[in-house]
Amino acid sequence: MPETTKITGPLGIIAGQGPLPCVLAEAVAAHGIPLHIVGIRGEADAEIERFPHTWIKWGEIGRLFGGLEKSGCTDLVIIGAVNRPDFGNVRPDFGAIKALPFLLGLGKGGDDSVLSRIVSFFEDKGYRVHGAGDVAPELLVEEGTLSTKTPSAEDKTDIAMALKVVRALGQLDVGQGAIVAKGRVLAVEAAEGTDAMLQRCADLRTSGRTRGARAGVLVKAPKPGQEERIDMPTIGPETMKKVAEAGLAGVAVAAGRVLLAERAATIEAANKNKLFLVGEGWDDTDE
Amino acid sequence: MPETTKITGPLGIIAGQGPLPCVLAEAVAAHGIPLHIVGIRGEADAEIERFPHTWIKWGEIGRLFGGLEKSGCTDLVIIGAVNRPDFGNVRPDFGAIKALPFLLGLGKGGDDSVLSRIVSFFEDKGYRVHGAGDVAPELLVEEGTLSTKTPSAEDKTDIAMALKVVRALGQLDVGQGAIVAKGRVLAVEAAEGTDAMLQRCADLRTSGRTRGARAGVLVKAPKPGQEERIDMPTIGPETMKKVAEAGLAGVAVAAGRVLLAERAATIEAANKNKLFLVGEGWDDTDE
Repeated sequence: MPETTKITGPLGIIAGQGPLPCVLAEAVAAHGIPLHIVGIRGEADAEIERFPHTWIKWGEIGRLFGGLEKSGCTDLVIIGAVNRPDFGNVRPDFGAIKALPFLLGLGKGGDDSVLSRIVSFFEDKGYRVHGAGDVAPELLVEEGTLSTKTPSAEDKTDIAMALKVVRALGQLDVGQGAIVAKGRVLAVEAAEGTDAMLQRCADLRTSGRTRGARAGVLVKAPKPGQEERIDMPTIGPETMKKVAEAGLAGVAVAAGRVLLAERAATIEAANKNKLFLVGEGWDDTDE
Repeated sequence: MPETTKITGPLGIIAGQGPLPCVLAEAVAAHGIPLHIVGIRGEADAEIERFPHTWIKWGEIGRLFGGLEKSGCTDLVIIGAVNRPDFGNVRPDFGAIKALPFLLGLGKGGDDSVLSRIVSFFEDKGYRVHGAGDVAPELLVEEGTLSTKTPSAEDKTDIAMALKVVRALGQLDVGQGAIVAKGRVLAVEAAEGTDAMLQRCADLRTSGRTRGARAGVLVKAPKPGQEERIDMPTIGPETMKKVAEAGLAGVAVAAGRVLLAERAATIEAANKNKLFLVGEGWDDTDE
């Protein structure tokens, strides 16, 4: 597991959807590091108001940098999913107009190239961009079994195959997940996201195209070269619920490379649904 | 394009869903080859009754071989999708009981291993199993542009990338299709099938996660080592309609390796929807 990155000043957290921004803020605060959250309206949860914060709208890039400067943040974590903005509804401020060439480039290319450009955009302005796992390694899934249930021999074969699929796909900048059951690849994640992929497997089951006792595994791992500082694979209690509904037996993720949104609640959800949850050793040299 | 396989006697056609069994029967009849269709009830279209035929239910394996023997067929084509049978509803006849060890093995493994076992099952009984394209090569997509519209330079980049994804995945016995738009892999086909994959892209568009002018391509190609005699990638007029609804610009398939269910209607549907439809050279040595 990586060492905690030394943060010299207060940490800026640019917050998208879900509980992760606040989970991170709590962890950072527990490390004794001051912080300031910049929440994107319509994306970030109102919970961020528990911490020092600034709200911005999509396109208010001048206001974004204002919030960071005011609070003296030069270290940043960008965390939580965001919808690709509908540029028709964005009211750009002066900062956005200066950033226009950058913004216009965002519509094109694979996820990775878009995210790398976002990181470069901040780095070019003198900010240091960190991954959530770098500043709070306790949020990462560790190697080993986290659930009460452990994977069977058949589950282990499915895990190995799904890891292979994710590795092969990652080299083409595709997705972070795959589902394998009884040696058959049921689903591969691309732009639709993990939830939609799980829903698809639930549908296959409902329509009778898969059946029998619960079997199969959801595997999540980073893509080789993935911009993990801003787009780290993440699982949480909702993932466990959807995995159970899809008729799978459990979840395996790349240890140290996947965020656990709410650790206790996620493990509890795995146990409640009789799922295994394991962190698999993930060797970068194989990528 | 492959040579027409020499069929020495009448051809048995085991018919699943869709128009392909009848399209094949017509082509075979035009070659002057006698034929007998064995239709699976609940799967095959009533249209097969235009030809000499036998209806069987799932599990009536004795009756299946009876139909083939009665009509003197030792050459076979198995064609048209079938649902994996719900074994709870299958009433096996005596032939099925003898085939029980075979049937029990069908629930496991990737598509390819299941299909190879089906082919072996018939071959072990002395039948020769052919691909539809072997007995009627005119049903295959040829190399070149079939539609009025031709792919743009950007489309060609998307095609090349999608072909790469399909190749990488094929090596893991996954799917036959991928969708790439503006350099981004939108979807990868696994157990859900091409229609569901296209629907997903239409949904991404509706939800605003993809936008702008029509762009992107559906690519279909066989998996390396795919049992093409019984599971050849296929496109038809419905594919074109769904490709248009998904907001894509066109379709590219591996030339000589993908079946065109209804040639005239498919090209007409491509033109009506302003889509390109091309056959791409597909080099087996790269696989």
